[in-house]
Amino acid sequence: MGISRGALLTDQYQLTMAQLYFRHGLHERDARFEHFFRRYPDYGEHEAGYAINAGWGWLGRWADRARFGAAERDALRAHRVEGHRLFSNDFIEWLGGVSWDALRFEAIPEGRVAHANVPLTVVEGPLGVAQILETSLLNHLNFHTLVATKASRVVEATRGGAVLEFGLRRAPDEGGIAATRAALIGGVSASSNVGISHEMGVMPQGTHAHSMVQVFMALGDGELGAFRAYADMYPDECILLVDTIDSLESGIPNAITVFEELRAGGHDPVGIRLDSGDLAHLSVLASQMLDSAGFEEVHIVLSSGLDELTIFQILTQITDEAPRYGADPDRVIRRLLYGVGTKMATSDGRPYLDGVYKLVAIADRDEWRPAIKVSDTPAKIVNPGRKRVHRLYDQRGLATVDLMGLADERLGFPLEVRHHRETGIGRTLDESRVSATEELLEPATLAAPSDDPAVVAEARKRRVSDLERLDPGVKRLVNPHVYHVSVTRRLADLKTRLIEETL
Amino acid sequence: MGISRGALLTDQYQLTMAQLYFRHGLHERDARFEHFFRRYPDYGEHEAGYAINAGWGWLGRWADRARFGAAERDALRAHRVEGHRLFSNDFIEWLGGVSWDALRFEAIPEGRVAHANVPLTVVEGPLGVAQILETSLLNHLNFHTLVATKASRVVEATRGGAVLEFGLRRAPDEGGIAATRAALIGGVSASSNVGISHEMGVMPQGTHAHSMVQVFMALGDGELGAFRAYADMYPDECILLVDTIDSLESGIPNAITVFEELRAGGHDPVGIRLDSGDLAHLSVLASQMLDSAGFEEVHIVLSSGLDELTIFQILTQITDEAPRYGADPDRVIRRLLYGVGTKMATSDGRPYLDGVYKLVAIADRDEWRPAIKVSDTPAKIVNPGRKRVHRLYDQRGLATVDLMGLADERLGFPLEVRHHRETGIGRTLDESRVSATEELLEPATLAAPSDDPAVVAEARKRRVSDLERLDPGVKRLVNPHVYHVSVTRRLADLKTRLIEETL
Repeated sequence: MGISRGALLTDQYQLTMAQLYFRHGLHERDARFEHFFRRYPDYGEHEAGYAINAGWGWLGRWADRARFGAAERDALRAHRVEGHRLFSNDFIEWLGGVSWDALRFEAIPEGRVAHANVPLTVVEGPLGVAQILETSLLNHLNFHTLVATKASRVVEATRGGAVLEFGLRRAPDEGGIAATRAALIGGVSASSNVGISHEMGVMPQGTHAHSMVQVFMALGDGELGAFRAYADMYPDECILLVDTIDSLESGIPNAITVFEELRAGGHDPVGIRLDSGDLAHLSVLASQMLDSAGFEEVHIVLSSGLDELTIFQILTQITDEAPRYGADPDRVIRRLLYGVGTKMATSDGRPYLDGVYKLVAIADRDEWRPAIKVSDTPAKIVNPGRKRVHRLYDQRGLATVDLMGLADERLGFPLEVRHHRETGIGRTLDESRVSATEELLEPATLAAPSDDPAVVAEARKRRVSDLERLDPGVKRLVNPHVYHVSVTRRLADLKTRLIEETL
Repeated sequence: MGISRGALLTDQYQLTMAQLYFRHGLHERDARFEHFFRRYPDYGEHEAGYAINAGWGWLGRWADRARFGAAERDALRAHRVEGHRLFSNDFIEWLGGVSWDALRFEAIPEGRVAHANVPLTVVEGPLGVAQILETSLLNHLNFHTLVATKASRVVEATRGGAVLEFGLRRAPDEGGIAATRAALIGGVSASSNVGISHEMGVMPQGTHAHSMVQVFMALGDGELGAFRAYADMYPDECILLVDTIDSLESGIPNAITVFEELRAGGHDPVGIRLDSGDLAHLSVLASQMLDSAGFEEVHIVLSSGLDELTIFQILTQITDEAPRYGADPDRVIRRLLYGVGTKMATSDGRPYLDGVYKLVAIADRDEWRPAIKVSDTPAKIVNPGRKRVHRLYDQRGLATVDLMGLADERLGFPLEVRHHRETGIGRTLDESRVSATEELLEPATLAAPSDDPAVVAEARKRRVSDLERLDPGVKRLVNPHVYHVSVTRRLADLKTRLIEETL
């Protein structure tokens, strides 16, 4: 395995900074870092209005194997610059004793709706240890949340259809394993990715590839021979890929022939898969051909470059086009399943979440001192201090604002809130407009059993529950309504004061 | 570790198809699959005219640990659909004996320039084994080639500057490890990613983060205190991040103060890093400030959302703007280094390569039968048969065409070649126009020592050598000249005949 996946899955500067803290006796000092993202994914012609938080259990899996063991320490000892060692023996020895258990965590649970500029994860503990964790935390959480968010949009676009995740072949190397887990949290029904699906307790699924039909064609048995062989082998899970030659002229008629044979043998065929051509148009015609042959329960699996916008457009086209062929569009749509691969597993259009991990406070004797970063780009100014986050629900029971306040602050009504960045803009919330309030950050541990299928199952439920309580405008695929993220008056005042003191 | 990274890093349908081949006695039959991509990455406002092939050594690393061991076989035994087992005991037992050594491979070596629709990897051997390899082969090779290509473009855009890869924090989960290796093959000078850099024998590099400055600010020592601490710790590798407060007003003046102290102590400061604001404008001003203080050798590291187009634009702006400040633009540009992260590690704009793995021939008794797939989308028609690939160089010594022919075909001049897809379009090459011919596919083995730094080092050399022999128009960042990919007359005729026989 080498040393690339363990504790050295980090950036060099984390280690050089940690050594500096060690040398200055700052490494054990209590520090607080907050992880948040600044912008929802914007895919170019469409954008997210919310994110699905995910990845904590996956980070735990890394942490479980991430130790500065002998191999890691040997590598660091071997790092020389112009003849001299970069890392000293005493620092390397200290690394050998580092345990993530020294840190205290709070996190928004996996599967919950999360918003930009709100802390998703909080890390408190010895500065040296918390600093070293940064890279891997961001690496694991950013991508997980990115893909869970994309998957949630894809699932929402189907209007209740089932999505199968198929992306491993073009997913980003073994990041594709995380992509599958994240897509499950984001709401897909199953994945083709075998190993991780078994680990997560969701049986993998699949159909067959063109190559199987090609084999039988090259050997003289043709597409029909291939379909018969597949139906014979998998009589109760039979989904046939119909576009190796020509879907309408060859694939669907051959599939119907085989389905009739299956039925005669007492089996129920499951579906056909369309993988090229005009998927909307072909769905309407295929649906009619299947109905005419008496296979009204057979599904139609669509695949080939699907994402949420493509699915939205396909369903719109079916709604327009089906009546012209005398078909009921709702019936066509209800029988559709979706194989979504590359564009979900890579979050095509915005392949990264801009999540950061920022120091917001550091202890000085018994007192926490808020920390700030100003920078030459105003959007990069950090909200300072130790914070709590509340989600407020309106009279309809829908989430209306995520509100950051200081850790020792109690909320009281009327509540004066400010925009999280333009803190000069504010409004006042009356108690009558708020039906419920909850804290978003919960105590968390990296030692949770991350392989437990229940972790993913719980996260899937949280997503469904949170989306039910999210304004439809915020869920819109294109140009969504902007969800309110606010700070309390006290936090706004602290930020203003710190900026003034810095500049 | 679980079972997600081993032999079950595959799609479910590979296993269900393999079981079907097993049941029909086809699993041991010789088959040939070819891996190729159809389209160069198109990043939206710019596009690649070539790719850098990469990933073979990385796939070998996976293959080395990918066995259908007890845990894998247990998982497959546990797969039940409506009460009955999906995989039978005899098939699972056969899987237990599968070895990738049963396969024969040819590949274009890592680091070489590669083109669309040309086989990059060829797999021949028992159909069942070759089929099962598909998903992981594509997963590892597609992403590696994608990132190596992106990195090559970034490196080319710097006009000779050094690029440091910084992308792990937003890279796609542990796919970020592959991204680092691929970026090294693509020409970056080093990476911040510690573990894999050590494994590849290229020492990791880095500067420091804003958090370090924030710590010293929050504790009352300010930015200058932070810089002094860093210079004291790393006097010979001192690169200071100057934008935590304000680059021009605070960061650069403080850096110069510390650099003077370093010099007084007999050390040479290395650089400053700009991470926000107008990087081109700030580079010009920072360069002048450093020169005025006598630090003409100090580098300026640029970071913050860089990619090849941003770098191109920054260099253009410096060329325009420097003279207005009385500065020599070439001097400013020569001192620049580039920290490139997210957009390279994710191949932003096109986060996937559309590589496929297609059956092109299958043995029937002693004879290879070419296989074809027609599909409803003409671009997805496969070039059939067992092929060889030649690269022809013109009189300038530049590559002029990648030519696919049949395996038993000898090239002779005058050479009639056809467009690889629109096989009705052709031209004839005279011997006088061809200075050299080479075969691109070389015998390969998955058992190569993939952790050997020499593998990456050799690949890096091949990239440089191939780019020197590539037409500048093909290397253009925007709207590159289209490189010729052709097929021989015999291959074109075979394709035409097979399509006619199929439809």
